Amino acid sequence: MKIYRYPERKTWPELVKRPVFEREEISGLIAEIFETVEKDGDEALIQFNKKFDQALTPQITVSETELDNAADEISEDLKKAIQQAKENISKFHAAQIAETEKIETTKGVICWRENRAVEKVGIYIPGGTAPLFSTVLMLAVPAQLAGCREIILCTPPDSNGNINPAILYTAKLCGITQVFKTGGAQAVAAMALGTESIPKVYKIFGPGNQYVVAAKEFAQRYGVAIDMPAGPSEVLVIADRQAVPEFCAADLLSQAEHGSDSQVVFITDDFKIFTSTMEAVEKQVKKLPRNDMACKALDHSLFILTDSIEKALDFSNLYAPEHLILALEDFETYIPAIGNAGSVFLGNYSCESAGDYASGTNHTLPTNAYARNYSGVSMDSFVKKITFQHLSKEGLKKIGKTIEIMAEAEGLIAHKNAVSIRLK
Amino acid sequence: MKIYRYPERKTWPELVKRPVFEREEISGLIAEIFETVEKDGDEALIQFNKKFDQALTPQITVSETELDNAADEISEDLKKAIQQAKENISKFHAAQIAETEKIETTKGVICWRENRAVEKVGIYIPGGTAPLFSTVLMLAVPAQLAGCREIILCTPPDSNGNINPAILYTAKLCGITQVFKTGGAQAVAAMALGTESIPKVYKIFGPGNQYVVAAKEFAQRYGVAIDMPAGPSEVLVIADRQAVPEFCAADLLSQAEHGSDSQVVFITDDFKIFTSTMEAVEKQVKKLPRNDMACKALDHSLFILTDSIEKALDFSNLYAPEHLILALEDFETYIPAIGNAGSVFLGNYSCESAGDYASGTNHTLPTNAYARNYSGVSMDSFVKKITFQHLSKEGLKKIGKTIEIMAEAEGLIAHKNAVSIRLK
Repeated sequence: MKIYRYPERKTWPELVKRPVFEREEISGLIAEIFETVEKDGDEALIQFNKKFDQALTPQITVSETELDNAADEISEDLKKAIQQAKENISKFHAAQIAETEKIETTKGVICWRENRAVEKVGIYIPGGTAPLFSTVLMLAVPAQLAGCREIILCTPPDSNGNINPAILYTAKLCGITQVFKTGGAQAVAAMALGTESIPKVYKIFGPGNQYVVAAKEFAQRYGVAIDMPAGPSEVLVIADRQAVPEFCAADLLSQAEHGSDSQVVFITDDFKIFTSTMEAVEKQVKKLPRNDMACKALDHSLFILTDSIEKALDFSNLYAPEHLILALEDFETYIPAIGNAGSVFLGNYSCESAGDYASGTNHTLPTNAYARNYSGVSMDSFVKKITFQHLSKEGLKKIGKTIEIMAEAEGLIAHKNAVSIRLK
Repeated sequence: MKIYRYPERKTWPELVKRPVFEREEISGLIAEIFETVEKDGDEALIQFNKKFDQALTPQITVSETELDNAADEISEDLKKAIQQAKENISKFHAAQIAETEKIETTKGVICWRENRAVEKVGIYIPGGTAPLFSTVLMLAVPAQLAGCREIILCTPPDSNGNINPAILYTAKLCGITQVFKTGGAQAVAAMALGTESIPKVYKIFGPGNQYVVAAKEFAQRYGVAIDMPAGPSEVLVIADRQAVPEFCAADLLSQAEHGSDSQVVFITDDFKIFTSTMEAVEKQVKKLPRNDMACKALDHSLFILTDSIEKALDFSNLYAPEHLILALEDFETYIPAIGNAGSVFLGNYSCESAGDYASGTNHTLPTNAYARNYSGVSMDSFVKKITFQHLSKEGLKKIGKTIEIMAEAEGLIAHKNAVSIRLK
């Protein structure tokens, strides 16, 4: 833990800095993988599965049988949990679909926006230690609500060539159209370029390691969009004297266990809470199965004692955390002061894991200070908002002169003519 | 003109292809410019002005006096036109600010979203032949409505070191906080990195040549967001027998005059409209001052005769045009069939130039087939939507088991603990 007592404002820019990753190193490798996938298609993916995942996958497409069987391989409790989470996520996201309001900006000039789903989207779900079926929910539920026609999912197989059944069960539940056994940069390449089995998509979503992140960045050269730039996960907790140190510690640790590069920040104006929370962290971390990773993350965590909650919020806005927890008595007072954050958790009972799984909000959020300029994933991420306009002849008459004068002043005479010829 | 009569569907993917630009060539130059701006700050910009614009600009910041004097240097008519346009753009964009609706996803679990302005935004306006003060309106009006705290503008000076007064007048009118005399990739670098005079911004907007486009792409490495990827401007017009060939021709030409790389597509199911529109284009183009550019754009334009409007719309969705004009009698019938487009103009009196200047819709739109996965600029572009949640103890009890089960199944025990410790 890095401990700071009343750090001066001029030191803050140094404190909010995130680790910098060298991308150049792997960019050659990524380009090579894209080339191989472009050239060899499915066969490339089969070979990559052999090489990287020690898996034999003659078919990279998950079969209907595999999808159907998944439900039998997980507990009833887990199925119910996934269903409750899905229900809440659906409720929250469905409410984000804005009505189409027609605006008559000038008499006879009617303008509006309509949503259209991104037709083809691809979801990447990492393999490895944690089967992130919760991320399937977070991406597939809004995709389906938005009306995306094709929602495909790529995830690496285990060494037996299988996909975790909780991922398959959730995929089927959420209307994923096809699941493919492929991971890493090659999965991203496949979704960006298309192969015999995998359709080329228009937008790629989902988390991953540095290769996946680099591949998503690279994929944009092919006209594909991505959900957002990525970085290690973060939480910033602001606590006052009524906070519960054990709760704060548990929240800090649920961030720390994500990985050794997780960013954990704690700020309080109360000395007792400051010390008790650090103690509670030390105590709780020992019992965690992912203790190793959590300890590494804690090594570079920040524990800051401040003289006011206002200052804590100023620091938080500069930091722009992915997750912000306000363990404050009068949290409502401070909401307007929040400028930069991905998702905010209010009060002592709003733990980050509620938003990670089941409250209904999305857990795909901007990290790495991107909360200054990006929103988390929402229904907006799965639609385009197309503007429409209808001008009657009267309407064009009313704004025609304005258009003609402006077009002429910009030297664009054909733009002017398009009006003049209609009003002649 | 490239003429296609009833082209088969299998030929469409070839027809919708856009020109490919080689970016690699200039990427070294862009990196160099960023380095120079990072090292020398304002002085670098002053030197670039000398080198690229033959302009002496000891001060790159536009003074208050320069801003104030601009109003006297343009006609009253132009001022009135700019004001009417601003009013319509304001009306349309203000209506896009969605209400905050709180959703109780489970009893005691309340989730909602709030908008927060991107604090610092930078607008780039190109110099050259056309002073694009209309783009100042399109970017500064929503930025101001969104509440962006800092809205700066960079644009290259003329050889006398001055900025076009229409740009300055519009900038002042729209609450731009500072204007700087710098253009090209170096202006983008300055906004991404900051200099003594120019503040570092969080998001960069605006059009430009290939150097500006490449610089905006490059700037993202520094954590800056951009409005959207860019490409040459486009229009696709679909006309039926009631369309007016002279109107269609004028619209096609108002696209063609933008530049020799402009993309112009005309589709009709009526042979007479097909030939008369081509004739009208030939006739009108001769009188244009930007005749040269327009003719070059027309050389690679597509004129397609089709056997149904439905098919025309299918083609349009595959093409994903920036601007789509439906010069159709029953245009309303076809609105639901529009899947991919930046902005749509309905009927014979909705010319593209209305949306370019004064109807109220935004003219910063996705080109280069990006209408498949991107929206045009709107209020959404200037805000982040932050999610909030408040769980009461009862609320956490109701979804606690679900969170615990899911967290455990993902192997994230600290996530589970954050709930268990609160419900103990």
